Amino acid sequence: MKFDEDGNVTTFEKKKMELYHELSLQARDLRFQHLTSITARNNNIIIRMEALKAVVTPNSLLVLDFRGLGLERWLVLELAPQLNGDHGALATHSLPFEFRALEAILQHRVNTLQARLNEVHPVILDILESLVDPKLLSADRSKLHILLQNSKNLSELETDIKVFKDSLLKILDEEEMIEELCVTKWTDPRVFEESSLGIDHAEEMELLLENYFMQAEELGNTTRELKGLIDDSESVIFINLDSHRNVMMRLNLQLTMGTFSLSLFGLMGVAFGMNLESTFEEDPKVFWLVTGFMFLGSGLIWRRLLSFLGRHLEPTIPPQIPTVWKRNQINSKGGEVKSGLR
Amino acid sequence: MKFDEDGNVTTFEKKKMELYHELSLQARDLRFQHLTSITARNNNIIIRMEALKAVVTPNSLLVLDFRGLGLERWLVLELAPQLNGDHGALATHSLPFEFRALEAILQHRVNTLQARLNEVHPVILDILESLVDPKLLSADRSKLHILLQNSKNLSELETDIKVFKDSLLKILDEEEMIEELCVTKWTDPRVFEESSLGIDHAEEMELLLENYFMQAEELGNTTRELKGLIDDSESVIFINLDSHRNVMMRLNLQLTMGTFSLSLFGLMGVAFGMNLESTFEEDPKVFWLVTGFMFLGSGLIWRRLLSFLGRHLEPTIPPQIPTVWKRNQINSKGGEVKSGLR
Amino acid sequence: MKFDEDGNVTTFEKKKMELYHELSLQARDLRFQHLTSITARNNNIIIRMEALKAVVTPNSLLVLDFRGLGLERWLVLELAPQLNGDHGALATHSLPFEFRALEAILQHRVNTLQARLNEVHPVILDILESLVDPKLLSADRSKLHILLQNSKNLSELETDIKVFKDSLLKILDEEEMIEELCVTKWTDPRVFEESSLGIDHAEEMELLLENYFMQAEELGNTTRELKGLIDDSESVIFINLDSHRNVMMRLNLQLTMGTFSLSLFGLMGVAFGMNLESTFEEDPKVFWLVTGFMFLGSGLIWRRLLSFLGRHLEPTIPPQIPTVWKRNQINSKGGEVKSGLR
Amino acid sequence: MKFDEDGNVTTFEKKKMELYHELSLQARDLRFQHLTSITARNNNIIIRMEALKAVVTPNSLLVLDFRGLGLERWLVLELAPQLNGDHGALATHSLPFEFRALEAILQHRVNTLQARLNEVHPVILDILESLVDPKLLSADRSKLHILLQNSKNLSELETDIKVFKDSLLKILDEEEMIEELCVTKWTDPRVFEESSLGIDHAEEMELLLENYFMQAEELGNTTRELKGLIDDSESVIFINLDSHRNVMMRLNLQLTMGTFSLSLFGLMGVAFGMNLESTFEEDPKVFWLVTGFMFLGSGLIWRRLLSFLGRHLEPTIPPQIPTVWKRNQINSKGGEVKSGLR
Amino acid sequence: MKFDEDGNVTTFEKKKMELYHELSLQARDLRFQHLTSITARNNNIIIRMEALKAVVTPNSLLVLDFRGLGLERWLVLELAPQLNGDHGALATHSLPFEFRALEAILQHRVNTLQARLNEVHPVILDILESLVDPKLLSADRSKLHILLQNSKNLSELETDIKVFKDSLLKILDEEEMIEELCVTKWTDPRVFEESSLGIDHAEEMELLLENYFMQAEELGNTTRELKGLIDDSESVIFINLDSHRNVMMRLNLQLTMGTFSLSLFGLMGVAFGMNLESTFEEDPKVFWLVTGFMFLGSGLIWRRLLSFLGRHLEPTIPPQIPTVWKRNQINSKGGEVKSGLR
Repeated sequence: MKFDEDGNVTTFEKKKMELYHELSLQARDLRFQHLTSITARNNNIIIRMEALKAVVTPNSLLVLDFRGLGLERWLVLELAPQLNGDHGALATHSLPFEFRALEAILQHRVNTLQARLNEVHPVILDILESLVDPKLLSADRSKLHILLQNSKNLSELETDIKVFKDSLLKILDEEEMIEELCVTKWTDPRVFEESSLGIDHAEEMELLLENYFMQAEELGNTTRELKGLIDDSESVIFINLDSHRNVMMRLNLQLTMGTFSLSLFGLMGVAFGMNLESTFEEDPKVFWLVTGFMFLGSGLIWRRLLSFLGRHLEPTIPPQIPTVWKRNQINSKGGEVKSGLR
Repeated sequence: MKFDEDGNVTTFEKKKMELYHELSLQARDLRFQHLTSITARNNNIIIRMEALKAVVTPNSLLVLDFRGLGLERWLVLELAPQLNGDHGALATHSLPFEFRALEAILQHRVNTLQARLNEVHPVILDILESLVDPKLLSADRSKLHILLQNSKNLSELETDIKVFKDSLLKILDEEEMIEELCVTKWTDPRVFEESSLGIDHAEEMELLLENYFMQAEELGNTTRELKGLIDDSESVIFINLDSHRNVMMRLNLQLTMGTFSLSLFGLMGVAFGMNLESTFEEDPKVFWLVTGFMFLGSGLIWRRLLSFLGRHLEPTIPPQIPTVWKRNQINSKGGEVKSGLR
Repeated sequence: MKFDEDGNVTTFEKKKMELYHELSLQARDLRFQHLTSITARNNNIIIRMEALKAVVTPNSLLVLDFRGLGLERWLVLELAPQLNGDHGALATHSLPFEFRALEAILQHRVNTLQARLNEVHPVILDILESLVDPKLLSADRSKLHILLQNSKNLSELETDIKVFKDSLLKILDEEEMIEELCVTKWTDPRVFEESSLGIDHAEEMELLLENYFMQAEELGNTTRELKGLIDDSESVIFINLDSHRNVMMRLNLQLTMGTFSLSLFGLMGVAFGMNLESTFEEDPKVFWLVTGFMFLGSGLIWRRLLSFLGRHLEPTIPPQIPTVWKRNQINSKGGEVKSGLR
Repeated sequence: MKFDEDGNVTTFEKKKMELYHELSLQARDLRFQHLTSITARNNNIIIRMEALKAVVTPNSLLVLDFRGLGLERWLVLELAPQLNGDHGALATHSLPFEFRALEAILQHRVNTLQARLNEVHPVILDILESLVDPKLLSADRSKLHILLQNSKNLSELETDIKVFKDSLLKILDEEEMIEELCVTKWTDPRVFEESSLGIDHAEEMELLLENYFMQAEELGNTTRELKGLIDDSESVIFINLDSHRNVMMRLNLQLTMGTFSLSLFGLMGVAFGMNLESTFEEDPKVFWLVTGFMFLGSGLIWRRLLSFLGRHLEPTIPPQIPTVWKRNQINSKGGEVKSGLR
Repeated sequence: MKFDEDGNVTTFEKKKMELYHELSLQARDLRFQHLTSITARNNNIIIRMEALKAVVTPNSLLVLDFRGLGLERWLVLELAPQLNGDHGALATHSLPFEFRALEAILQHRVNTLQARLNEVHPVILDILESLVDPKLLSADRSKLHILLQNSKNLSELETDIKVFKDSLLKILDEEEMIEELCVTKWTDPRVFEESSLGIDHAEEMELLLENYFMQAEELGNTTRELKGLIDDSESVIFINLDSHRNVMMRLNLQLTMGTFSLSLFGLMGVAFGMNLESTFEEDPKVFWLVTGFMFLGSGLIWRRLLSFLGRHLEPTIPPQIPTVWKRNQINSKGGEVKSGLR
């Protein structure tokens, strides 16, 4: 089913049962029930990282079921040289094979997670930037939809990072499991003694795992910050929309006031327009008087209403604003004094 | 009261007291006060998983009070073959009976939780998808109600998963309790020695429990993601509704402006419609003049108001937008450099 | 000061000092500074559970200051028989007296908490049910007030449960403290040896405390779920209110459009109503023409505005909705495959 | 620099260097870099509680830099008698001096925190009560401002309580540090032996610290509850405001409907008011007909619109409400059954 | 590549390989993969604090790649004297070189974090203060944008503080690592014995690290408080905007009522303005009657509507408000009693 590499790559297919016998493993050990797991069994390290299933023996790496397209290219182009030690990027040249294999796989996993983050990150920033734009009266709803998609991807990524971190942490917390992962130490004492002149294998393994744990932690921090940014931006979008609405509402109210004034005094005009006798019909001055009264009255009433609105929107009693921030200034001053003293 | 299985199923009824004597347990041990619990007492494992109450002895499994309908079918159709070892799905063939029994029960519990999640999951996704649709002016309130129901079920499910995880974790944290669960080890040393040629019972038990713990953890992660998705979707729904409102409000405001302009100049027409003498009555040009003035004036005022609105809705000073995202680009660049270096 | 029970109840009053001497305790030990605490001192267990203050000696239970009305009835009607062992509900018949006393008190405490939860629970559910009702245009504000009261009670209850759990957990975490609580073991070695033929006292005590800890945990889970339900319901209420508002706003906008159209063409009528010469006065067809134009024009303009509104409320570009939920389906499918394989 | 008390108070000024020599401490030890810390150095306990800096030696208490006004009164009026043992409130009479000193200082700290809470607590409750009032159409904005100030103070208080708790917890977690705090034990073995006939010093110290830790915990619980209450109240205020708005909006909409109807039929009146020939001018019945038609038509159209609004606001399909709460009833019933069984 | 200081500063460039040999380190050790890390390797302490990369050997401090501008000034002006012991601010004069170097670097890091906080803190307070101002009808959107930027910076700062704290905590949690950091102890036993007459190196190191850990903790507390303040302020802004809106809406509604009344009775005037015969044309009293009726009727209807609105906005049943706060008063009273008793 798969290909084995020690220096050169060989691809072959095998029945599961043969594999079990060869590696003296049990059927259960190769079931890969969890999406992310690293376990040591009978001097083999069994790894699953989502799609990638691998068995690390003391001198070979078996990759099972490599169907994913991206995986194949990575396997051929990058994994082989890394395991050979040609590639200068690995820090584990002088160390036994299982270190190189484990590092290559963990590095691949972290790179995958980083790539997913790199994909989501700029999209979210772009959308937030355009949504937060204070000039917009209404949020672009298709962008909201894309934001939702990406924030969903982000939380899936967050879960995957957490799972990856947890599976590393489980090993880091137990000294024994780290020891078990140092396969060479148990199978090939000669190589072990040779290489371990200056190095403790278990400690090296711990450093290696810790390294990837911290890389995952950094990814986790970035996703958390990004989630916080989305939350903050949503608040700002709400305040923006609400502010726009309030401004429009005030304008609306002012115009309604105008319309009301005009209706009130227009009623007077309508009254005089009735086909009823009002005894004023013949007096030419009355026309100008009433017309003037109508327009002036409307204007005055409107002005009164507007000034009433102005007063109405102010708070009842002006609060003592300064007191809110008092203690902080003391605090920050204290901070300066403190740092000055040292 | 119920049926016992070792290879074949027997159903019988018994008084509680007889049962106590037979298993040398105390009344208190079979009270099942907690909804989910696994305890070892006198070489018996006493398990309760919500409706399912069972006692695992070294060579039989007693299921008590199996009244739930679904349970009965599971007991007859699935449990019996699993315990016999006929069913190929269990990983504990070669292990003593209590492993098979425990695994069957835990598997049943995880399956139940998974089934509940599978029931709630697509419903919530469907509802959210239809609620988030940006074309909708208002949320469909009957869907909201169904969403509320499902999100309630979801949080109940979350609690159940948490309780299940906690009861497993309590055992996993104490070495002694794991030892106690390996009933055969204590009762039947012969079988123990025989089977344990290559296997440490306690370690196997730990693996078995850990396996189900991690499955529960995965379920828990999914529920948490789903809850996050509901929250995010609600925010998007709010922004959607607010955006719609703002758009409508602007249209409303524009029309109110129009109505105001028309009222203002309509007042002029009303003035001339009064049955008062204005000396212009006989001049035919005045009609066209005033009418034209009315319409043109309305139009002009409206246009002024609209452009005023346009200016009013813009922010006072355009902020320096680019600075917000600066550091992130450095960060992500740093990330690329880092991964490039290795 | 109060009544002592071993088999029969005696009520008496004592000075604090005498009590100290009798129990060889210090004044400080009986100060009960914390609302909830269980401590062992000189072979006495000193317990405070909010109002209830008690001292358990190896063969009697002293309850101090029983002023609370509810407490008195509980003391007489329930506590006495429970301590005698008449009451069949206690699991500690065969165990020394301090177990019975401790169990009775803890049971009383859990019952009190449960009763408070039972009081708050249905009220909150009722109110939420009526508030969430999608037919309502506005939330009933008196119900909101009651909801606020109950949610306040709920968080107080949550704190009390947490405090109860913490005080049990503090004992469970320290083996020594559990040993100390087994008073009989230290004072009456004979009884101890007799009864402990099959039972380890400390382990029994741990089981007893753990039992009540888990009961408290279940209460805590229920309160947490209830709080989550309140939060979810509030979101739904907000979306409901917002939706109602949007619907009303659209209707309002549509009518404003109508009013605007009528005003626009009404202006024409007003123009012709002016007492100015328009040369059309004598032509009877013009009346019908202008009137028809007014009504028809209004109708047409309104229709144009409505269709404009319809177009305006739709999003700019229809987003690719399906992609949001893609990965979930894979996930849930994966889950089914996984469970199918086993 | 300050005053020393063993039985009597003496105030003196000293150079820092002399103090160091006298107490055989290093300069660094008296720098008090953290706002809250308790450390033991060379048989001295060095304490800082915000403004209060003190050194406890086996038989004296040095308070440094007592500039705060409130502090001075406390020092003279309360601290001296407490250390003398005159004051009956301390539980550590029979214990060595450092216990009394430590207790006095911790008590002072807890009292200060409690006082700050007592100050903020009623103000917040009052404001919330007035803001939550369902009769209010709009929140009083000056009260909101005061609420913001107080909620800021509250979170500062929360931080201080947390810091206090953490510094106590740090000591409680390390047995050694507790031992070190029992200064007399190391300096004055005679006194130690004498007093410790029945008492273990380290245990007493642990009890003392634990006592204040739990008092701080209670304060912390209260602040957390208060914060929760503020959050809940804000939700209720929002729902209140939204409800008010919806009610007003419906009224507004109903009136807009009325105005629309009147405009529509008013147009007819305007049409007949034009100075154009309509051939009906002479028929007296037409006046009543048209007028009646106008008013009746307006009324009818309005009624139709109102009933249309009524139908429009109802949800499309009435959801099955009962199902939401089903499981809870089972649960709570289960709870009753459970408690009834025991 | 850089400069080394023991008493005097020397700047030189070196190849990486030479450096490795000189310090007997491996290439991997100087890769600085994490933004913040402190590790001990072969009696060298390797430190990275974001831009600053340094190696502390028992008697020199190598700073690598000091490209940052601010860093250079700090290196020359502050670091050199601090390491010489000229600067009075360091608490580690009498201690070996590595203490001085480590303290200088940690102090620099904390100062940098503090400086970033000091930059963000007043800006956020200023903006919040101006945004919370209850007089404002709408939030200034450019300020919102700046707030968003700063809250983003704040959460980045929070992450950096957390990372710094975690890397210190990792060392503090492992006794061995602290021992390893005491480089002099291992390389120069003579110096070690000499200086350690009264001091335990490992303990001093622990104190030093703990000191900076607590400083970072204080920074973390301040950022958390600031975040809480932003959240609270946003709620207040929302309530403010909502309140404004409700007030405006009520005014709008009142005016709409007025306009409606005027339209209703204006219709009467329009009716009489029609060129239709109404038989009242000649009666002069009818003019005044109808006009009066129009105005009075409008006024009365408006008044009815206003009082209807007033009634409509009140809640259905006045709730029993006092009960909400009852228990708190008991509690706080209990608190006073308690503190009074001691």
